[in-house]
Amino acid sequence: MTDMTAAAIHMTGKLEPRSAWSAPGDRCPIARTFDTVGTKSALVILREAFYGASRYEEFVERTGLSEPAVAARLRELADEGLLEKFPYQEAGQRARSAYRLTEKGSDLLPVLVAMMRWGDRWLFPEGARLELTHTDCGSPVHAELRCEAGHEVAPDALDLASRPRRARA
Amino acid sequence: MTDMTAAAIHMTGKLEPRSAWSAPGDRCPIARTFDTVGTKSALVILREAFYGASRYEEFVERTGLSEPAVAARLRELADEGLLEKFPYQEAGQRARSAYRLTEKGSDLLPVLVAMMRWGDRWLFPEGARLELTHTDCGSPVHAELRCEAGHEVAPDALDLASRPRRARA
Repeated sequence: MTDMTAAAIHMTGKLEPRSAWSAPGDRCPIARTFDTVGTKSALVILREAFYGASRYEEFVERTGLSEPAVAARLRELADEGLLEKFPYQEAGQRARSAYRLTEKGSDLLPVLVAMMRWGDRWLFPEGARLELTHTDCGSPVHAELRCEAGHEVAPDALDLASRPRRARA
Repeated sequence: MTDMTAAAIHMTGKLEPRSAWSAPGDRCPIARTFDTVGTKSALVILREAFYGASRYEEFVERTGLSEPAVAARLRELADEGLLEKFPYQEAGQRARSAYRLTEKGSDLLPVLVAMMRWGDRWLFPEGARLELTHTDCGSPVHAELRCEAGHEVAPDALDLASRPRRARA
């Protein structure tokens, strides 16, 4: 088919043809992920958590969001299990809560890096302002498609298949 | 610092300390990417473009979105240069337009795969319904952090630095 884009994902097995099945919003992991973290304010708060912010004031100062927006998003992100509260206390002040990424939250790093790289490439023709590099060797870091066998995966070398349902114990 | 999360990105050079600079929305590539593709309807239309949809009717049928929503999103995604129109004609019918991913649109694949994998892992405890695999070897595919020297990059091995401005010609 000559119109096929280079990046099309090949449907295999029961998924072929695509018109034979649906991807309802509540079962699609992309749509569900968007429901969980798909606001700009949540993303910039997560960005700042990756950049090391933990105190409420730091999130307000570094995101440019309003105090109520930061408070609401921190609470939601904690409710979703992406951030967790921990106590901290500065000398002479009362104990307060700060926030850090959980494993669930930290695991979003490839999403943010992929968005950062796409934005750098396509939305800043004058060149990116920041560079993300590997601490060990100094080379630029990207979010790349790789398979568990370690191969770099070309965008036209992806198959999508339905997984067998697990047998009940 | 004992509170540091494992996934924190190390600020280096002029970016350290983080409190010394701001990441305004119009300069942050993550926020700008969100502005460009950050609606659920845009994401599911892009998902279906990667799954091989090209005709308006296919997008309506496969996304479950309303016809006006699909029409509006296709127009926006074409205006942003993520999709491009191409003519097609079925026997006995008038020529019409269909849509395919441009290079700019195709380049979002790591973002979608990263979201899919995160959703599979964290939002579907009963297990993912679909499996994305490498055509060549059949192994599951992920969006992984890799540096240009080819190293797998651990989440705590990332440095962020400001890039020198290019000298004017």
